[in-house]
Amino acid sequence: MQALKDRILAEGRYLQNGILRVDSFINHQVDPELMDACGAEFARAFADCKADRILTAEISGIAPALMAARHLNLPVVYARKHKPVTMPDQVYFTVAPSHTKGNMVDLIVSPDYLPRGEKVLIIDDFLASGSTILGLVRLVQAAGAKLVGIGTLIEKSFEGGRKSLETLGVPVVSLVCIESMENGEFKFID
Amino acid sequence: MQALKDRILAEGRYLQNGILRVDSFINHQVDPELMDACGAEFARAFADCKADRILTAEISGIAPALMAARHLNLPVVYARKHKPVTMPDQVYFTVAPSHTKGNMVDLIVSPDYLPRGEKVLIIDDFLASGSTILGLVRLVQAAGAKLVGIGTLIEKSFEGGRKSLETLGVPVVSLVCIESMENGEFKFID
Repeated sequence: MQALKDRILAEGRYLQNGILRVDSFINHQVDPELMDACGAEFARAFADCKADRILTAEISGIAPALMAARHLNLPVVYARKHKPVTMPDQVYFTVAPSHTKGNMVDLIVSPDYLPRGEKVLIIDDFLASGSTILGLVRLVQAAGAKLVGIGTLIEKSFEGGRKSLETLGVPVVSLVCIESMENGEFKFID
Repeated sequence: MQALKDRILAEGRYLQNGILRVDSFINHQVDPELMDACGAEFARAFADCKADRILTAEISGIAPALMAARHLNLPVVYARKHKPVTMPDQVYFTVAPSHTKGNMVDLIVSPDYLPRGEKVLIIDDFLASGSTILGLVRLVQAAGAKLVGIGTLIEKSFEGGRKSLETLGVPVVSLVCIESMENGEFKFID
């Protein structure tokens, strides 16, 4: 997706350890127009999946997933990392290693919003090692729902996440795929 | 706003201690169409404020603030509760008591996304005691920016938050105002 690629080239910053800073338009400040365009792109990519609902993970998955949900006219559910008092005691729960934080994070979804038998599309901001997305996949499986697709804004192909998702047998769509960020120079795969 | 009021009547649940559960359409599962309509309503209410940017707090403020930002064509910034590795060391920082968690939460914004002199509109999901919003106001003040308005989806007027915001001298707009939830029966103020 050219608009997202242009924005990464203009404002993305390579920090270290494979971490890409995009907090001027995705995960601290958010550009609603760009995010809405990304949502429309996801809607086109997954139009044939006939999903019943979108699942993402708080915090930075919310904006792209909400915009995709708007264009697909679906409810969106975000897995919580801390169980709020408003959530029932019986939940779907898994643990996933956090790429940027270096620790483990909880992913929690209320069974009310992940019904058995439904078709679920996962949307998140990054596909890096794939560990967060695999956590979301485990929640889908625990619920007895059916995964129908995975979409992310930015894939960092050098971290190998796509390989870990291949066995799931669903389309994996990244709007932009970065092959390398060495010396802060971005190389994209079309 | 009638659509939001109807949804609270249909799906909102009074838990205890003044806590209203709206996790089927606002803060776990999100209804993108309703949230978009709320964003349009905020845009109408604050059209004259000439804001430069919207500020909210993660996590449940993101959806309404993003949709308001879409309709006002403004960037939106969400205050982080944990400083990510992608954030610079010099930040605006404050602490606010959490209504639902009973502890204190950090609110952190990068100076890059809260420039001095800009006009800032605060959008959040709830106006209860007003403590989170007052935390956001302190961040605006610390940045030398100018607060021009405060919008929330749901006000619980019995918790007195509006009074704590009155001295700020800016419009405070709630799309729905709940006067009482005694015995799980919602009474609204028009």
